[in-house]
Amino acid sequence: MTHQPVVRNNQRNDMTKIKVAQFGLGPIGIETLKLAATKPWVEIVGGIDIDPAKVGKMLSEITGDNSIRNAHVHRSLEELIARAKPDLVFHTSVSRLKEAYVQIEPIVRAGISVVSSCEELLFPQLREPELAVKLDKACKDGGARALGTGVNPGFVMDVLPVCLTGVCRNVKAIHIQRVVNASTRRGPLQKKIGSGLPPAEFERLFAEGKAGHAGLKDSAALIAHSLSWKLNELHETCKAVVASHDIRTRHVEVKRGQTCGLHQVVVGKVNDEVRLTLDLKMYLDAQNPYDACQIDGEPSLNMMLNGGVAGDAATVAALVNAAPRVLKAQPGLLLMTDIAVPSYM
Amino acid sequence: MTHQPVVRNNQRNDMTKIKVAQFGLGPIGIETLKLAATKPWVEIVGGIDIDPAKVGKMLSEITGDNSIRNAHVHRSLEELIARAKPDLVFHTSVSRLKEAYVQIEPIVRAGISVVSSCEELLFPQLREPELAVKLDKACKDGGARALGTGVNPGFVMDVLPVCLTGVCRNVKAIHIQRVVNASTRRGPLQKKIGSGLPPAEFERLFAEGKAGHAGLKDSAALIAHSLSWKLNELHETCKAVVASHDIRTRHVEVKRGQTCGLHQVVVGKVNDEVRLTLDLKMYLDAQNPYDACQIDGEPSLNMMLNGGVAGDAATVAALVNAAPRVLKAQPGLLLMTDIAVPSYM
Repeated sequence: MTHQPVVRNNQRNDMTKIKVAQFGLGPIGIETLKLAATKPWVEIVGGIDIDPAKVGKMLSEITGDNSIRNAHVHRSLEELIARAKPDLVFHTSVSRLKEAYVQIEPIVRAGISVVSSCEELLFPQLREPELAVKLDKACKDGGARALGTGVNPGFVMDVLPVCLTGVCRNVKAIHIQRVVNASTRRGPLQKKIGSGLPPAEFERLFAEGKAGHAGLKDSAALIAHSLSWKLNELHETCKAVVASHDIRTRHVEVKRGQTCGLHQVVVGKVNDEVRLTLDLKMYLDAQNPYDACQIDGEPSLNMMLNGGVAGDAATVAALVNAAPRVLKAQPGLLLMTDIAVPSYM
Repeated sequence: MTHQPVVRNNQRNDMTKIKVAQFGLGPIGIETLKLAATKPWVEIVGGIDIDPAKVGKMLSEITGDNSIRNAHVHRSLEELIARAKPDLVFHTSVSRLKEAYVQIEPIVRAGISVVSSCEELLFPQLREPELAVKLDKACKDGGARALGTGVNPGFVMDVLPVCLTGVCRNVKAIHIQRVVNASTRRGPLQKKIGSGLPPAEFERLFAEGKAGHAGLKDSAALIAHSLSWKLNELHETCKAVVASHDIRTRHVEVKRGQTCGLHQVVVGKVNDEVRLTLDLKMYLDAQNPYDACQIDGEPSLNMMLNGGVAGDAATVAALVNAAPRVLKAQPGLLLMTDIAVPSYM
């Protein structure tokens, strides 16, 4: 048997390498760089971080990945560009668009596209419509693209359900559930879900916007936008999940009766009728994690991802895999539903 | 509660209507027209069919849908264009690209985009690479797009699995299973799967390319292309499913021991290693139909669509929903993995 390919054409062989830089060198940023470094279509040209302990260091030193050569951490975009101008920047620093905007705007204005993990960038028209318009203009002025993505938001509770509706003649309602075992996740996430707090305190922090999962309303708004549903109500609630036994992870310690996670629900209504529910449970020691979605329509669809899409590894993959699709799109502020179907790259 | 939308922007409101025509007025073509007629973004301008019994008739008469006004069946593209030039034609007439090509080429050359149910158009580079190159050129010359899509091929055994890999750092293998209860499907499909034939005769007809499901190898090739896997082998087998009891549907009658459906399997290898399996069972009285997919990777994913994506209704929806996404893409021969993520429109 010869190894002649059955099909000759191959999209990535003709691809010139994408010059990539990393904005934000926290744990997700480092993992993004390390995954990007494994891709034959990526050339890593540098990083940006404000931490004086990181500025000037080689990326190989910071990531522990010696395959990343001749690239180091710059304190500013200008310094990075003076050395080597990337085609695309992975941006993994903040959840709020207000903070992300001041970081991303100069990048796209310089003609460099951005793929960001900023949760509010998934559908910036929801919380920051004025900034969305300004960012779209900055992208077009610079000939660049900006996209917010990830696993949640960015895939399991928005893009994947939307994808399923592609074979529907009609969609009456969409119900999505996600259960995450937070014990398998990174420390900051275990804290964000309230681990160890008195339940009333966690719920107060959620009400103040200081705890909870960012991006659930954003996922709902992206789905509604994609289906042209005009939501007249988009309501979010969050309750503490209370530990039934003492729990100890590598990062936190929780006593029975304390918060060990969250149960966050978003309901979207059209003409006062419930058309969308997004139900997220993220807690320590959750058994049988899963992602599920029911499309009530013609045909109705009932999807289950047993085990769910677990881990920060998937978030990093979503960012890196999006890069080639983003660069093929027209300049502007992009939504995940504007670009080509997700795919391993 | 006022009905002010939560989010202002809305993609379909700014859309001018898409002028649509239908090529081929068999059962699928008629259902496509009827679904398209329900969409506020569609204006139906006419149909094309060679059947003298249909030429000249009003589409409202042929479809039984009186909302389709002032549009009738033409015998040729030229006659249709002389009356009203569509932006897009739904093409639902044949499975083989050789036959589809002579119908589609003049349409795209006239600057009219095509969304087709032709199974071999899903990934024409597999069976007809020369025609694929010619069709791509005709599209670009005319400023039009051509896309092959549907449910299978076009979604459950190709695009949906590809979409899942979008959150994977690595993909070792993809295994896909589909079980269809053919008793719920149209007559031609019940015959195509061999209903009522002696099993040996059905398997002989499959070997001759005269029976079986069209598009399974095409789905595998699209996945491989999307993941940049160079398949060195793409092997297809098909066995008859033998009736364990007498079966009678509206369309066929099958005695115990006769063929009541098919079990068709495609295996794709990279460097002689199995990386892809597509396992399709389509038979009368199949219990518990489903669509399932396992991604062996990082993370591994295990998807189940209970009940599956059933029925010709979904095929028609896939065609109609693709239209706006196709028109937003650059001119050329398109793959489902080139255009925006599927979505109800």
